[in-house]
Amino acid sequence: MTATMPDTSRLTGRMLIAGSPVRGSGTLIRAFNPSTGQELEPAYPYGDQSHVDAACSAAAEAFAVYRSTTSEQRGEFLEAIAANIEAIRDDIIARAVAESGLPEARITGEVGRTTGQLRLFAEVLREGSWNGARIDPAVRDRKPSPRADIRQRFIALGPVAVFGASNFPLAFSVAGGDTASALAAGCPVVVKAHDAHPGTSELVGCAINDAVAGADLPAGTFSLLFGSGPDLGIALVTDPRVKAVGFTGSRSAGTTLVAAAASRPEPIPVYAEMSSINPVFLLGGALATRGADLGPAFVASLTMGSGQFCTNPGLVIAVDGPGLDAFLTAARDAVAQAPATPMLTPGIAENYAAGVNTLSSEADLIVRGEAGDSQTACRAALFATDAKSLLSLQSLQTEVFGSSSLIVRCDDVRRLLPLLELKAGRILFDGWPTGVEVCHAMVHGGPYPATSDSRSTSVGSRAIERFLRPVCYQNVPKTLLPSVIADDNPDHLWRRIDGRLTQD
Amino acid sequence: MTATMPDTSRLTGRMLIAGSPVRGSGTLIRAFNPSTGQELEPAYPYGDQSHVDAACSAAAEAFAVYRSTTSEQRGEFLEAIAANIEAIRDDIIARAVAESGLPEARITGEVGRTTGQLRLFAEVLREGSWNGARIDPAVRDRKPSPRADIRQRFIALGPVAVFGASNFPLAFSVAGGDTASALAAGCPVVVKAHDAHPGTSELVGCAINDAVAGADLPAGTFSLLFGSGPDLGIALVTDPRVKAVGFTGSRSAGTTLVAAAASRPEPIPVYAEMSSINPVFLLGGALATRGADLGPAFVASLTMGSGQFCTNPGLVIAVDGPGLDAFLTAARDAVAQAPATPMLTPGIAENYAAGVNTLSSEADLIVRGEAGDSQTACRAALFATDAKSLLSLQSLQTEVFGSSSLIVRCDDVRRLLPLLELKAGRILFDGWPTGVEVCHAMVHGGPYPATSDSRSTSVGSRAIERFLRPVCYQNVPKTLLPSVIADDNPDHLWRRIDGRLTQD
Repeated sequence: MTATMPDTSRLTGRMLIAGSPVRGSGTLIRAFNPSTGQELEPAYPYGDQSHVDAACSAAAEAFAVYRSTTSEQRGEFLEAIAANIEAIRDDIIARAVAESGLPEARITGEVGRTTGQLRLFAEVLREGSWNGARIDPAVRDRKPSPRADIRQRFIALGPVAVFGASNFPLAFSVAGGDTASALAAGCPVVVKAHDAHPGTSELVGCAINDAVAGADLPAGTFSLLFGSGPDLGIALVTDPRVKAVGFTGSRSAGTTLVAAAASRPEPIPVYAEMSSINPVFLLGGALATRGADLGPAFVASLTMGSGQFCTNPGLVIAVDGPGLDAFLTAARDAVAQAPATPMLTPGIAENYAAGVNTLSSEADLIVRGEAGDSQTACRAALFATDAKSLLSLQSLQTEVFGSSSLIVRCDDVRRLLPLLELKAGRILFDGWPTGVEVCHAMVHGGPYPATSDSRSTSVGSRAIERFLRPVCYQNVPKTLLPSVIADDNPDHLWRRIDGRLTQD
Repeated sequence: MTATMPDTSRLTGRMLIAGSPVRGSGTLIRAFNPSTGQELEPAYPYGDQSHVDAACSAAAEAFAVYRSTTSEQRGEFLEAIAANIEAIRDDIIARAVAESGLPEARITGEVGRTTGQLRLFAEVLREGSWNGARIDPAVRDRKPSPRADIRQRFIALGPVAVFGASNFPLAFSVAGGDTASALAAGCPVVVKAHDAHPGTSELVGCAINDAVAGADLPAGTFSLLFGSGPDLGIALVTDPRVKAVGFTGSRSAGTTLVAAAASRPEPIPVYAEMSSINPVFLLGGALATRGADLGPAFVASLTMGSGQFCTNPGLVIAVDGPGLDAFLTAARDAVAQAPATPMLTPGIAENYAAGVNTLSSEADLIVRGEAGDSQTACRAALFATDAKSLLSLQSLQTEVFGSSSLIVRCDDVRRLLPLLELKAGRILFDGWPTGVEVCHAMVHGGPYPATSDSRSTSVGSRAIERFLRPVCYQNVPKTLLPSVIADDNPDHLWRRIDGRLTQD
């Protein structure tokens, strides 16, 4: 096994399968620069079923070794990935800006977020609670029957398929949150790269690949594939060696993967982060004291990254009263002055235009932003409707991915918090939904259709739990017990003994 | 709302919908005494879609109040259910013995297990870690951007549908582990009773109902329905107000419910405990020192409760060597002398006979137990095969529900533990799989098809996690924060602050 870091000025167009560069033989795709309208070299030929098979076979083989590495080993491995990404940071940023059309400052921040979450999971591994260690000691003299010695820990599910997202070419892509949390859990990862940023994917894939080699891990711990969703993507999700799936993207693609996973002889969990309109509530107090100031702040959140965030504020419920007109005027002016910005792909731009068209026929247009002349230009849009229309028209409740939002004027909102808890995974006051902190308490997700599994989060340290399952060890000889549930707590973990947390 | 505890000598044959007894109008069923072959009064008419609708509507209404009760309130409620069950303990035992044909000692133990797990969840509620409280305090001066105040806790999913199991008329039925853990989580419960023990179900349902009334909880917190699986069961799982399902039973029924839940406009999790053959490994050391003693111990586990346990030892992998013949001889003699015992229902007895027939044609019969003359008699059966046949014949890997087991003689078993971890949810040494302790470290479940969701357990305190999801609170004003994530830790919980566990 040799390190495969390319001269980053010469991307190869090859996949990475268990440490080896492999050229596909299918459809050729090239990245597209949404800012210039130009295609970017090199061409990336799609892989096929045989590549899925090779990657999954290697992942299954690697799993036996990789899942048994220590928390410390995996922590160092994740940190090495972060360091390798930083070593080619400038190349990654340049390529990702070219492939996404996103501003350099945004991509720079995303690199920091990506390396930050790799290091967060290294911390989580060292802290050790992820093991879920529990011990119920034997009670030999219990009546009517003795209690056995019963212990529990979490183990990794198995190889995980990760689908890169178009809108976060780093933080939700090849070395993003799904990959970081799956690798932390002890699961080998097979990534299907997103067509929108193949060069960025190759660079980051090489950074992971070098970390695998450097840590002397089995080569199958990581693979990176290129291919179509309906063909290679479905082949990956239905491969019997894959035991879980992480996905961020559209609702239609997400539900397709969920259905494919459910129809397997052995169904597996799919963590699909899909769509949300992220309702924002403007209450009387805020409007009365700073209605005019809220307008530009709202539009800044709305148009950030051409509105291509899972957390884009697509719906504003505003309580009628003092300050609302000032907010509306300020928001209207800010949207009118918003420049057209490139969207990630021509397809996303087409879908955005179609969504805005639908809204135009069902709601009142307040204002459009500046028009652009490129194929991918996102022209911001602000609409208004009333509560009755919102409740009765499905089209007004549908996400439009991009810088479009719908404002609803209403008389009152009462007892909001208990209702919102049942609708959302994240409730925030005094701010806008864009900007998701990667920390211990974050939930990125929520009830369907925001995600396919509301019991989980794809952002934050709890994401590791998606790729674990508990195993119970009853009367297992002490010499065979994993150290996390051994007597005398050699790993100095927080454990639950007879139901009580302790570090003893 | 009035207490509805009937004179237990006069069961009513009615369902319980949100505190009110309701007579169904569908097919009449009666319990059947497998020991005597006689039907038991009264008749229970099936409910229909309208009853599902009424129960789910009341559950959804109750949810808003019930989910916001305190841990202490729910703990007292669970304890009241346990006390109410104990108050009619003798009636419950008499009826459950008659309906199941299981020995009185077994049913008596099951009552203790049922009340014990209700009280275990009361303890879990008071201990408080179930809240999953996390706080990442604001870092106002962080560069390049400040960190907001971010907190997290778990909330209840919503109304839960529970399906009673035939083989545990108490511990996995109306007030069993699914109901106890869902009620603990803050979820109202709608139970579909199993046809095999309607009278036991009515008695226990009344015990819950009285506890609901006594605690002044919304009547819709609990309902008990009778009806067919394909009609009422599917209507319950597909009701939009139901947010999760607990089921213990056959693989075919379980996978049907999973498919129905997945096809809903809003898919929901189904926790289906289905089938397992529970392989037992007899290693050289044990066989050499006590091969003959292991034979009767094995057969005692095999024939307990007519083999009607999820954990019945259906497959024995025995390493060839000293002591194996002594084991086989002792096991053969013990099976030959095993009396025929009644199975739960004629249908289960028919399936058992068919399963034994299939094994007879694919494996070598070692011995049968004593024959019985009733329609439901379970005649024990012991078969042998070789490793090659086991691996190649699907029929030999299929669960036969009842006192039948298959012994495989093999040359060696190496590195067993790492392999077993990937196949099972529970690994036990020096014992037999029957007898599942209800404690903090237990896992009842494991990879598909043992369960539909290997990330969970239906037995033990972790079962509560199945009915919870995390919610994140960002910059929420202190006056609106739930107490579990309030400053100064008013509930004295273990919480994760900046990723570190503390009670501060």
